[in-house]
Amino acid sequence: MIYITRRERFSAAHRMFREEWTDEENYRVFGKCSNPNWHGHDYVLYVTIKGEVPRETGLFMNITRLKDIIKENIIDKADHKNLNLEVSFMKGKIATTENLAIAIWDELKPLIEKEGADLHCVRISETENNTIEYYG
Amino acid sequence: MIYITRRERFSAAHRMFREEWTDEENYRVFGKCSNPNWHGHDYVLYVTIKGEVPRETGLFMNITRLKDIIKENIIDKADHKNLNLEVSFMKGKIATTENLAIAIWDELKPLIEKEGADLHCVRISETENNTIEYYG
Amino acid sequence: MIYITRRERFSAAHRMFREEWTDEENYRVFGKCSNPNWHGHDYVLYVTIKGEVPRETGLFMNITRLKDIIKENIIDKADHKNLNLEVSFMKGKIATTENLAIAIWDELKPLIEKEGADLHCVRISETENNTIEYYG
Amino acid sequence: MIYITRRERFSAAHRMFREEWTDEENYRVFGKCSNPNWHGHDYVLYVTIKGEVPRETGLFMNITRLKDIIKENIIDKADHKNLNLEVSFMKGKIATTENLAIAIWDELKPLIEKEGADLHCVRISETENNTIEYYG
Amino acid sequence: MIYITRRERFSAAHRMFREEWTDEENYRVFGKCSNPNWHGHDYVLYVTIKGEVPRETGLFMNITRLKDIIKENIIDKADHKNLNLEVSFMKGKIATTENLAIAIWDELKPLIEKEGADLHCVRISETENNTIEYYG
Amino acid sequence: MIYITRRERFSAAHRMFREEWTDEENYRVFGKCSNPNWHGHDYVLYVTIKGEVPRETGLFMNITRLKDIIKENIIDKADHKNLNLEVSFMKGKIATTENLAIAIWDELKPLIEKEGADLHCVRISETENNTIEYYG
Repeated sequence: MIYITRRERFSAAHRMFREEWTDEENYRVFGKCSNPNWHGHDYVLYVTIKGEVPRETGLFMNITRLKDIIKENIIDKADHKNLNLEVSFMKGKIATTENLAIAIWDELKPLIEKEGADLHCVRISETENNTIEYYG
Repeated sequence: MIYITRRERFSAAHRMFREEWTDEENYRVFGKCSNPNWHGHDYVLYVTIKGEVPRETGLFMNITRLKDIIKENIIDKADHKNLNLEVSFMKGKIATTENLAIAIWDELKPLIEKEGADLHCVRISETENNTIEYYG
Repeated sequence: MIYITRRERFSAAHRMFREEWTDEENYRVFGKCSNPNWHGHDYVLYVTIKGEVPRETGLFMNITRLKDIIKENIIDKADHKNLNLEVSFMKGKIATTENLAIAIWDELKPLIEKEGADLHCVRISETENNTIEYYG
Repeated sequence: MIYITRRERFSAAHRMFREEWTDEENYRVFGKCSNPNWHGHDYVLYVTIKGEVPRETGLFMNITRLKDIIKENIIDKADHKNLNLEVSFMKGKIATTENLAIAIWDELKPLIEKEGADLHCVRISETENNTIEYYG
Repeated sequence: MIYITRRERFSAAHRMFREEWTDEENYRVFGKCSNPNWHGHDYVLYVTIKGEVPRETGLFMNITRLKDIIKENIIDKADHKNLNLEVSFMKGKIATTENLAIAIWDELKPLIEKEGADLHCVRISETENNTIEYYG
Repeated sequence: MIYITRRERFSAAHRMFREEWTDEENYRVFGKCSNPNWHGHDYVLYVTIKGEVPRETGLFMNITRLKDIIKENIIDKADHKNLNLEVSFMKGKIATTENLAIAIWDELKPLIEKEGADLHCVRISETENNTIEYYG
């Protein structure tokens, strides 16, 4: 069993809040991340897949293929966008990094499996100090 | 002459555009950075000051003092904010990283000089690949 | 289940040695890390907690709360200190990074659980090349 | 149980290909990594070992010993070399990072065990975006 | 005057040697970098340009334009290639990082000037420890 | 003119203080860096030299030679040592990073010139946020 991790990046705006709450209630739960005028991050995304290495090539999965899947389904949809307003796979979800990791997992899992590999982990660093991991 | 550089970070939303232009015109000049729904970055700010090292202490300027000046005047005003809508020193300016570096220079220069030092450089990394420097 | 990792840093002096051994014996076991005049590091600490994400907020645990717990109980006690002489949770222990990771685990575990989360891992990088992990 | 990770680096040339295939066939499977004139990387190698911490020293395994084992058996053989033509433990294998991680695992496992520790993981970053992990 | 730095990366094989010298002579001057079977690096390239910021846009030069120029003229020609055998702008030159920086400068200077900007610096990191800068 | 920068690291203990001052006076000027029980850092040292590139080799100065000079004269004397008590070139100086940079400059300048090159800059990062540069 081999694990491959691909790193990608995207820059996006977001805001953490519940619509039915007042600004004060949102601030109490989400702190400065609830700022009504948005803020943003250079998100770093690590996608780890796992599987067997075929003897014939010694190549588990072409990293370019993995990169293309992530780019087409995640980066192109989220980069230079507003996670709350414009990103299809975040629709109806609170734009926390936790929910973002779960949503990216749900997007990628069937696509990775179609390639004959398993999705192992979605990791997102929101800043250099804060990182979220989701293993399904 | 000694140069001291302090690194700080802030996360903010922004959009590059001219109000009097259409979305299409803005897109032609500013590309995806003109997205009307905002996007954001984890900006990394490097402030470099210079001056003589006093013999008595061997300490040019207490780095904690420098950190406090940057924090109070830049980070606290820009972190988790919208550069276009909420940051006083960016008012009326297009929110490019170039203008941001110049605006931060203008904010910090008199404050650094009040401490008996010279401001040498304001450097901002918008992403790990794009960096702007301004020397006045 | 979601994993959140918070990165913090502290700068400290330390020395690895057993009091009842001679300097030569200590050097044989601990190498240059046993230097009687101390040396030091910019330790990087990664604390990983895990738990369920509540549907209502999509926020497992406010990262600011986690940061405050680490700061108050670890960073404020160890930063700019001597791990052997001044840090309460290292009292009576040899100041190896292994023991440091275990001691930080023991400090944080009950505090994290009081927040309704589980401590998953304490990771410490002593230098960019040497890292210790402890999972309890 | 404690985990120690040592980071080392080596710079090497390689090419991914099967001798019995044409350049076109190799390109179809391995992409630009099959370039007949070679290319190269600054490989970053992370070796993680695990074991119990002895009470007497608080030191699981002297990191200098671990470093020496990696240096003598891996780095000295691969650094500034051609992975396909000159590196004994890659002989007869396609020079993918997957095979490289497995080969390094096979080299190090008995040597680590001779020290009374267990090899836990061999991780190799080929570039800052592509990383392979192998756990045996 | 504003300075913009764009970071790009490429992975290449190379060898430092003079054809008319024996392997021994080459080794004496170039050390292990003269290995006849090649070795390689993940080169990191930083291109710094400078110029005035136009008032109308606050944007010195669209970073995407700069990126495209570097990609088309440098990265696409050098990535996954052999610097000695395949890279047109290194033809007839010893493949040292010094010569590489000068050659990239010569390639980019007229192209940057055609955009109305000045080339300020070409910086190349061969490894995380070794960096070359050229200012023309 | 070409600039070469070599990065090296050393871990050391230090304390900033004037012997003739009380602990309170030292704390007022140097803050927590004056802690009588020492603290420490993983110092990162960047030495930049400059000179002409000889046509015959395209190699300004063998980086291994530069590395050896820094290692023998700085790293071996400061690594895992106490800057105040044990490092010859810091004797009688307050152990600020400013003084450290100047002292390293004074040590290296004649040695670099003996090699036919010029010392351009000594840069020291005390932590990832604080950096000192000295150009003589």
